[in-house]
Amino acid sequence: MCRFLAYKGSPILLDKLLYQPKNSLIHQSFEARERREPLNGDGFGLGWYVHDIAPTPAVYLSIRPAWNDINLRSLATHTQADCAFAHVRAASTGDVTEYNCHPFNFNEMLFMHNGDVGGFDRLVRPLRERLSNAVYSRIRGQTDSEHFFALFLDIYLGNGSLPAPRDIPGALLEAIAELRGMKAKLGITEPAWLNIALTDGRIIVATRYVSEPHRPAQTLYYSQGSRYECHNGVCLMRHSDMAEHAVLIVSEKLTDRLSDWNAIPHNHMIVVGEDLGVTLTKIDV
Amino acid sequence: MCRFLAYKGSPILLDKLLYQPKNSLIHQSFEARERREPLNGDGFGLGWYVHDIAPTPAVYLSIRPAWNDINLRSLATHTQADCAFAHVRAASTGDVTEYNCHPFNFNEMLFMHNGDVGGFDRLVRPLRERLSNAVYSRIRGQTDSEHFFALFLDIYLGNGSLPAPRDIPGALLEAIAELRGMKAKLGITEPAWLNIALTDGRIIVATRYVSEPHRPAQTLYYSQGSRYECHNGVCLMRHSDMAEHAVLIVSEKLTDRLSDWNAIPHNHMIVVGEDLGVTLTKIDV
Amino acid sequence: MCRFLAYKGSPILLDKLLYQPKNSLIHQSFEARERREPLNGDGFGLGWYVHDIAPTPAVYLSIRPAWNDINLRSLATHTQADCAFAHVRAASTGDVTEYNCHPFNFNEMLFMHNGDVGGFDRLVRPLRERLSNAVYSRIRGQTDSEHFFALFLDIYLGNGSLPAPRDIPGALLEAIAELRGMKAKLGITEPAWLNIALTDGRIIVATRYVSEPHRPAQTLYYSQGSRYECHNGVCLMRHSDMAEHAVLIVSEKLTDRLSDWNAIPHNHMIVVGEDLGVTLTKIDV
Amino acid sequence: MCRFLAYKGSPILLDKLLYQPKNSLIHQSFEARERREPLNGDGFGLGWYVHDIAPTPAVYLSIRPAWNDINLRSLATHTQADCAFAHVRAASTGDVTEYNCHPFNFNEMLFMHNGDVGGFDRLVRPLRERLSNAVYSRIRGQTDSEHFFALFLDIYLGNGSLPAPRDIPGALLEAIAELRGMKAKLGITEPAWLNIALTDGRIIVATRYVSEPHRPAQTLYYSQGSRYECHNGVCLMRHSDMAEHAVLIVSEKLTDRLSDWNAIPHNHMIVVGEDLGVTLTKIDV
Repeated sequence: MCRFLAYKGSPILLDKLLYQPKNSLIHQSFEARERREPLNGDGFGLGWYVHDIAPTPAVYLSIRPAWNDINLRSLATHTQADCAFAHVRAASTGDVTEYNCHPFNFNEMLFMHNGDVGGFDRLVRPLRERLSNAVYSRIRGQTDSEHFFALFLDIYLGNGSLPAPRDIPGALLEAIAELRGMKAKLGITEPAWLNIALTDGRIIVATRYVSEPHRPAQTLYYSQGSRYECHNGVCLMRHSDMAEHAVLIVSEKLTDRLSDWNAIPHNHMIVVGEDLGVTLTKIDV
Repeated sequence: MCRFLAYKGSPILLDKLLYQPKNSLIHQSFEARERREPLNGDGFGLGWYVHDIAPTPAVYLSIRPAWNDINLRSLATHTQADCAFAHVRAASTGDVTEYNCHPFNFNEMLFMHNGDVGGFDRLVRPLRERLSNAVYSRIRGQTDSEHFFALFLDIYLGNGSLPAPRDIPGALLEAIAELRGMKAKLGITEPAWLNIALTDGRIIVATRYVSEPHRPAQTLYYSQGSRYECHNGVCLMRHSDMAEHAVLIVSEKLTDRLSDWNAIPHNHMIVVGEDLGVTLTKIDV
Repeated sequence: MCRFLAYKGSPILLDKLLYQPKNSLIHQSFEARERREPLNGDGFGLGWYVHDIAPTPAVYLSIRPAWNDINLRSLATHTQADCAFAHVRAASTGDVTEYNCHPFNFNEMLFMHNGDVGGFDRLVRPLRERLSNAVYSRIRGQTDSEHFFALFLDIYLGNGSLPAPRDIPGALLEAIAELRGMKAKLGITEPAWLNIALTDGRIIVATRYVSEPHRPAQTLYYSQGSRYECHNGVCLMRHSDMAEHAVLIVSEKLTDRLSDWNAIPHNHMIVVGEDLGVTLTKIDV
Repeated sequence: MCRFLAYKGSPILLDKLLYQPKNSLIHQSFEARERREPLNGDGFGLGWYVHDIAPTPAVYLSIRPAWNDINLRSLATHTQADCAFAHVRAASTGDVTEYNCHPFNFNEMLFMHNGDVGGFDRLVRPLRERLSNAVYSRIRGQTDSEHFFALFLDIYLGNGSLPAPRDIPGALLEAIAELRGMKAKLGITEPAWLNIALTDGRIIVATRYVSEPHRPAQTLYYSQGSRYECHNGVCLMRHSDMAEHAVLIVSEKLTDRLSDWNAIPHNHMIVVGEDLGVTLTKIDV
């Protein structure tokens, strides 16, 4: 079921996101609090942007549990970024291999998923057949997550016909709607749990969504302020300097200061703009 | 392009196949002799049968280079088998992950491939669409090899309609023919190089084949005798005891005693029967 | 702090020890019951004997968490042994590398440890200096466990002077006594927790021990009967056939049938003889 | 025997050092040109400085062969540094584990070695006993390289007595002299091959050295100019802009333009200063 974290804001040392908070993502890899199964030890992934080098993100994936990965420890304490995605995996669909680790990457885009597409065994073939060759040939793993990302990409990229790219929020809503349509057509009643985060390095789009709206969606929070800081193991969101901004989107609250964390409402999409403005919209598909 | 080895005969310590010969498979992992590119360092696989425990084989796969895998070293010196497959990979199609390592396994069956299916990028979609759900859902990796194995399985298993299983040599020839048909239909002129080995633990079937017969097929040899022995680093096939039998099929000659090795003729299939009898047949597809 | 399991008896499929019991060792790798910290995800090791091939054991070590290791899964369902050791690690001293995984092997001997040698940072240098070159040069990792094994070996092998080997229980008691002496000399008051298992493939010797006897030793149990069986996920020790014998020594009870499990008393040594007879002795050092 | 590369100069994309040159370090990992054995597939390491985040370097180590490491590929194309070390290993002394991979790191210092300390099996104990506890306790692996680095550190750091740090070139010469003394005392006649590179992120010190001066030292080159550039797969050292500087020290020439590469003379030390000035000195120990 996995846990993830997305950050956009002033450049931040990744260590402050991954290791320093009391309930950091690395802590969640062995003792997640807000889901029944506490272990997320089936792989890890980190993506971040270095805008002055390339529009594509750097990606580090590993099937070592995050808590004992010495390379990750060194990267986190030596890398600053203004946009970063991180994910710890608890494998449901798909084997434990780097190619099933999130975030998935396509050109400048990063995608990660916490959830489960019910009935994926029946969805996978029609879903693949619908894809353009360009997107089809980039699928490397077996997860429902990567396949949903492929569906999104196909819509976002104009289905192989190469028009100007669509907008990310619109394409994501269309992908959710198309998935619902496929499920209906195949008579699949298991819910699709789609807590998703997407970025092109400029904006972040995330959803807290379940396809059967009477079921409770999985947890998703955001935090917004002027600067996310950690001192002596205590991390919090500052609100002092109006010239700065920082936004975090997380599967679980990273700290015990509850006022820092806003639950994203059930079946809503959050968009963090280039100016770090936050918009919440109800998902009506 | 890879290198492989198949053995059927009196129970043999795997060390004698993998490490002891002068040009052992482990040696071929870093310094193959009979192909231009000497390195096969992109993963390793070993499969063997323990008939009194299970009809399915034990499989050990690793993306560590074979030459420095301490587990493989220990397994090889403590495991005897009367039927074993081993493979060192030089990745062409597909990433370096355990799920692209040979031998591939399905129920009691093992499959390995040395070669390349030309035009696989265009073949992969129609090939997958042709598969029954049962076989489709078992594909875990990205290689041309695993997909050709899936095509074979679908034919061998009766295409999802579950009749009595077909014979292995017949289904393999049919799979080759069907692949040729797909290539022709799509106008693919790049050759399919299909040096293949298949076993169900009882018989071994192997091919030395290229779809454009004027091109030279890759090397494939067999050796037949009463017992394959190694003493003080010198390995050879004995012919003394008529009550015993041993057959080896290899991509490269393991030793310098040339009289031990028979080249399998161009575009031929070799079948090693349950009685260890060897049959060579021309492939006319 | 780790968890381990030792078996000696009629040949048993390793799957019945590692995976099938309700609280199997693999289950303990992610959710141990009888210690505060439930996770043992920092490496795994398995050793077993194939007496008709070699007096030395086969050893499989991995730093992948045991619960998602496909090779281990395949080995366990295809390997039978009459003497086997298995260990899941929660790293305290020493990095996460195969060379810190238990069981440690020296010639025909296997050694594993659940516990902690307090003050090891101060003990390591005098302990190493005391060793013969033959044993010193075989140390590959950093753990207190491997260093205590080296101390044992030096005593067992006659300290480099190569007399006939000493008996295992005697050498183990001497090693414990020598460690206590070193601790006293250096003024180290932290306890040495020494739940240890040792075998040469013929007998098993294990201890439940803490150097400060007023502290509670860690849990250790044994089970004894005619055959250890698993059917439909329910495992138990049978007592029916008097011609058979099986002995298990485990850090945690593998099943809920409490009558199968005897706690080894505090600061006691258990010896399982070649005839599978069990002896318990108080450790008076 | 290994291959390495050290860079100091204007910030450079690591890809231009590791992948783009015709005979790049990654190419040397599978096909080194200037040594008999072409394969360096037993691990890889990369260290680089991010001066505005920390004085310590970031370090990435892996036992995957460098040529198929997807994380390294992504890091190299997204990381710029003005001081970087990289190393591909061909294991001689010590197992294949991350803890035997170069560069070794201690606080702000990086160290790598291409060569072999003859008679290390006899040197290791007296060498370790000579070390201060602070340095002794930081040794994690088994290599002659890491132990020589420990000897250097002990001298550089004032042998545990914590004076102001010594200068790096002086401490390195003293360490070489002390090693020679140990060898003489123990009657070890096998040469110590010490092609070494050391940096604290500010200066680089490297040696091309063999302890028996009539033996040919292993190759070592440097290149100096205004900017090291790669375009369309062709890399060369530019000399145009006098305001810039770049220095490379390499085991093998990275390109075919021979005029770019100066052999460091036999038994010489090279120092690259903070101002990128280069000094060559004969080693007289």
